[in-house]
Amino acid sequence: MHLRISQVARTKKKFNMADAGAPIGIFDSGIGGMTVARALADLLPYENMIYFGDTAHLPYGDKSTAAIQAYCIKICNMLLQQDCKLILIACNSASAAAFDLVREYIGTRAKAMNVIDPVVEYIKEPYANKTIGLIGTRQTVQSNVYKKKIDLLGKGITLKSLATPLLAPMIEEGFFDNSVSISVLGQYLSDPELTDIDALILGCTHYPLLKPEIENYYEGKVRVLDTSEIVANSVKAWLEQHYLINRSGTGAREFFVSDFTTSFESSTKIFFGSKIRLQHYPLWD
Amino acid sequence: MHLRISQVARTKKKFNMADAGAPIGIFDSGIGGMTVARALADLLPYENMIYFGDTAHLPYGDKSTAAIQAYCIKICNMLLQQDCKLILIACNSASAAAFDLVREYIGTRAKAMNVIDPVVEYIKEPYANKTIGLIGTRQTVQSNVYKKKIDLLGKGITLKSLATPLLAPMIEEGFFDNSVSISVLGQYLSDPELTDIDALILGCTHYPLLKPEIENYYEGKVRVLDTSEIVANSVKAWLEQHYLINRSGTGAREFFVSDFTTSFESSTKIFFGSKIRLQHYPLWD
Repeated sequence: MHLRISQVARTKKKFNMADAGAPIGIFDSGIGGMTVARALADLLPYENMIYFGDTAHLPYGDKSTAAIQAYCIKICNMLLQQDCKLILIACNSASAAAFDLVREYIGTRAKAMNVIDPVVEYIKEPYANKTIGLIGTRQTVQSNVYKKKIDLLGKGITLKSLATPLLAPMIEEGFFDNSVSISVLGQYLSDPELTDIDALILGCTHYPLLKPEIENYYEGKVRVLDTSEIVANSVKAWLEQHYLINRSGTGAREFFVSDFTTSFESSTKIFFGSKIRLQHYPLWD
Repeated sequence: MHLRISQVARTKKKFNMADAGAPIGIFDSGIGGMTVARALADLLPYENMIYFGDTAHLPYGDKSTAAIQAYCIKICNMLLQQDCKLILIACNSASAAAFDLVREYIGTRAKAMNVIDPVVEYIKEPYANKTIGLIGTRQTVQSNVYKKKIDLLGKGITLKSLATPLLAPMIEEGFFDNSVSISVLGQYLSDPELTDIDALILGCTHYPLLKPEIENYYEGKVRVLDTSEIVANSVKAWLEQHYLINRSGTGAREFFVSDFTTSFESSTKIFFGSKIRLQHYPLWD
């Protein structure tokens, strides 16, 4: 009897047409994930979107795996209460530490996506037998999750990765296109670990803001992969395949943070392109 | 009747000799406060010490006042349970946001100290009618707490302050004495806000590690105030005045963190001078 009910529930939640109007849930440790939210909004302007930034615990990059997993579950509860049809972890550190758990936890209640798998899928064919660089937080790099997934492709792709923990706070401080960013990027990108790469994965949702500078550094010799665009395209493709694109929505967008400061609100302009009103949602009280 | 009991309790807790053996409690948002713990350990080698680093919420510098206050109260509960005779907030952001609350909350159960008052007291006479610079986190600078306290001195001291949020993560990354720190410090210290100062307060417990470089930048023309030493001296003076110096202790030291990673543990060497074993104390479960 119990099994039957469970099966009914599962069948019902198999993303039927009625769910197309449901919002997309996106979360990140802070506001960096808004680069992905922006790419999504550009690509899917009619989708309703709920964004959650866990600014009380920002940044995730230096946190332990267990801590990040606990935060992600609590955030997913909030997004599931809002009946999201799809929940996207718009943070590489959280995708590395918690995606498998989040997918299990969400089950069939929504589609779980992350910002790593679309990039791995994207490089599969064009970079077979080539060498790819990766920059990201300590959590992302030390988890080895990119390497494991790339090795599973069986395409002979070599990954060289370097933790670059100063880049996210540098961007948050508004230091790009200046002497500081040139110096910091020079220090990181000249690291022996990153020599002889054919492309570079920007493995943190803050980094798209550095793309022009990183391209300048490599003088066009290394392709710099803007992961926010790749991820947005992947979300769109999945929604299309499952007839879940919202074609008549109002594009309503709500942005919640677990700790509110005016400084966070000002920074939304950097990441989302226009200033966003943040709502305080005290998830940890 | 209730009042009488309360008065007895208050009298009993007026720091009698028996309390000299009690530990000193120190807390910070992370491990930066260990520069203060180290200065204290050098000055008072027989004191027992309990350190708590709230690495689950690190850094406090960009958090809201209300969030920092809530974290501080919970940490104080833990330190009070350990019967600390003195609780030192070894973090400028937390001192700025929560000291008045913490002092009220602790009452007579322990002496509450912070890292701001000793510095303000220190500059009182030698810098009368002079101009002092301050660098620190956004929380510390925007709170205006240094300016309010310095104005209260009535000594005609002018304060010029600048938020320098990239310095703490830069130090945690081990970037000092290199091209990055020269570039970042150059960007900050050349800010028009900091011109014509006679001394500079290092308003973050991370910054003592940058003291030699900052002194180089100013070529000896600006006195750079190492606040960890000033604070340690102030703690010692208070303990002496109240006959609470521990002269026969073993100098036992315990270090707790709310989120444990090996990266935090490695970084203790930078801040404490030797590698410290960190114990995970899940205060937020």
